Amino acid sequence: MAAEEIRKVNSEAYPMKGGDGPYSYSKNSTYQREAMESTKELVTKEIGEKLDIDHLLPSNVFHIVDLGCSVGPNTFSSVENILEAVLLKYQSQGPMNPQIPEFQVFFNDHTPNDFNLLFKSLPPNRQYYAVGVPGSFYGRLFPRASIHLFHSSFALQWLSEVPKEVVEKNSPAWNKGRIHYLSSTDEVVRAYNAQYVADMECFLHARAQELVDGGLMVLIIPGCPHGTSVSDTMAYLTIQLLEACLIDMVTKGVVSEEKLDSFNMPMYIMSPLELEAVVERNGCLIIETLKTLSHVLGSDTVLNAKLFASHGRAGFERLIKQHFGEEILDELFDLYHKKFEEELSIVKPRKASSFLVVLRRKAK
Amino acid sequence: MAAEEIRKVNSEAYPMKGGDGPYSYSKNSTYQREAMESTKELVTKEIGEKLDIDHLLPSNVFHIVDLGCSVGPNTFSSVENILEAVLLKYQSQGPMNPQIPEFQVFFNDHTPNDFNLLFKSLPPNRQYYAVGVPGSFYGRLFPRASIHLFHSSFALQWLSEVPKEVVEKNSPAWNKGRIHYLSSTDEVVRAYNAQYVADMECFLHARAQELVDGGLMVLIIPGCPHGTSVSDTMAYLTIQLLEACLIDMVTKGVVSEEKLDSFNMPMYIMSPLELEAVVERNGCLIIETLKTLSHVLGSDTVLNAKLFASHGRAGFERLIKQHFGEEILDELFDLYHKKFEEELSIVKPRKASSFLVVLRRKAK
Repeated sequence: MAAEEIRKVNSEAYPMKGGDGPYSYSKNSTYQREAMESTKELVTKEIGEKLDIDHLLPSNVFHIVDLGCSVGPNTFSSVENILEAVLLKYQSQGPMNPQIPEFQVFFNDHTPNDFNLLFKSLPPNRQYYAVGVPGSFYGRLFPRASIHLFHSSFALQWLSEVPKEVVEKNSPAWNKGRIHYLSSTDEVVRAYNAQYVADMECFLHARAQELVDGGLMVLIIPGCPHGTSVSDTMAYLTIQLLEACLIDMVTKGVVSEEKLDSFNMPMYIMSPLELEAVVERNGCLIIETLKTLSHVLGSDTVLNAKLFASHGRAGFERLIKQHFGEEILDELFDLYHKKFEEELSIVKPRKASSFLVVLRRKAK
Repeated sequence: MAAEEIRKVNSEAYPMKGGDGPYSYSKNSTYQREAMESTKELVTKEIGEKLDIDHLLPSNVFHIVDLGCSVGPNTFSSVENILEAVLLKYQSQGPMNPQIPEFQVFFNDHTPNDFNLLFKSLPPNRQYYAVGVPGSFYGRLFPRASIHLFHSSFALQWLSEVPKEVVEKNSPAWNKGRIHYLSSTDEVVRAYNAQYVADMECFLHARAQELVDGGLMVLIIPGCPHGTSVSDTMAYLTIQLLEACLIDMVTKGVVSEEKLDSFNMPMYIMSPLELEAVVERNGCLIIETLKTLSHVLGSDTVLNAKLFASHGRAGFERLIKQHFGEEILDELFDLYHKKFEEELSIVKPRKASSFLVVLRRKAK
């Protein structure tokens, strides 16, 4: 039976902090918004050039998916940007084009994401039918050949789970005293890399099945673009500082050594080369565009330690709370803020660390 | 622009009580479950007979919508029942039928419905891709010609809003001292009827646009079947008792007279004749089946005052709370329970009061 093919992924969920309180992702995602704003023009241009409408027709509905949508103002503005770009493309075919479709937008995130808030926040004058889709994007989420355009912004850095070996005491890849693979041993790096490859294979396999022939994926990935070393990336800095804070708290006796040893960040800072390799092995998709986003760190707000720290809290709080408990949150993130202030000189010259990829589904 | 057609309905939301606490709809919907169980066989038979697969093909996805899904075990079992019936129909076309589609199920309810709980409760071994759709079913929810089967169970008795005249002091239809049109003046009855007709016209108009040619609607409606008088229905009894409780509380001084005067239940107990008239005026749909459901009150659990009262609370609590405030809830529903116990003799001989309608979209 066809429906039995639906693959369930027991992926861990790391949703951003819900609600709209002071530490919520909803209130702490201006950094991501800037990145998005800065890519707006680029995304519009890419869709204009790469979307092959004639091939996609005939269809009276155009399906757009936002993978890892979280909840907040960015969710809707990125989708609207894409919708406008698609609409422009249709309109460019002729002013009275009768084939302009209706739009249905699927907002996807892990099941614990705050969909109630997302639905409550939907723009009242939207030009699309809105739908929520719970589940991990490392598994199938949609029927075969049903999606015209996937979008994902700042979500693909999350692995489906922490590689098991790095938290096993008897494994050569045990990552004692650290919370990630960056500047760790070769074994730990290999374990994280294997997890990344396995996850990305699942991701591309699922999307290739779900995309219509000629359908596009527009991905904004915080990673390690060509010509950048991992240690130059913002992700590296944020994780290094978080690790330093946790180590301080172990020294102070607030957090046990064992707790720290058993905690790792399920994050991977991919490079375009690594992505290209997985896309090639998958075989169903073509990379149309791969561009470094170099303007993310251009604005003043980005150089604000408080903003950085609150963004870090919105992104990491649930993960930290789940493992270390709620009681350490305030102390940890106060420390995090202080460390960011001390390190502001390091933040300043830091290079951009995300890239845009546009992929197209080959004809079946 | 096509997308501008999307009609927004400023419908009031009356979702069932969320969460999974003792008074939640999730824990207090066994009555609805029984009704559903009792119609299971009938629904399967109807889909087997009325679903015209050859006409619906070619499509690799079959879209099912549950309108007014609320949240609880019933939500999933009714959808699974329908899915199985559709699957049976496809399989009956031949054991190796290569055209068995994948299923996507859209769970719809008002925006304040607890979608977070709904998503968390999704059956892990489901044979469909699950999606949540927030919004009133009295407006458009889906793109044109995109749905194969709509289902709705125990939801269409809710009006989009209380007719305005019945709460206006200077209107001849002012419904002073009562909470509904049943056993009220002709003016009030007319106002409620006009609201019902307007709402049902919107409902059918929206669904007719959203259904594919030949697509079906399977509706279970608590109403007033052929040969039943309104005063014999369960709905009548539950509302009458609620009204009596509120009047008692006005007498006791717990609730002000003004509060009672400005409260009305946005519910209509429709008859098949009324439904037939609206369907005929709409012109895009054919009634394939219209059957009274006579077995709903057959089981022992139904004759339990406590169960009745807790069902009433799950269904009405949000509405009451919104108007009268949280503080009266416990006293009101204790009284409601007591009145039900006193009236158990009236409950017993009460006739069934729901019917099944199957509608088909005519070819455009």
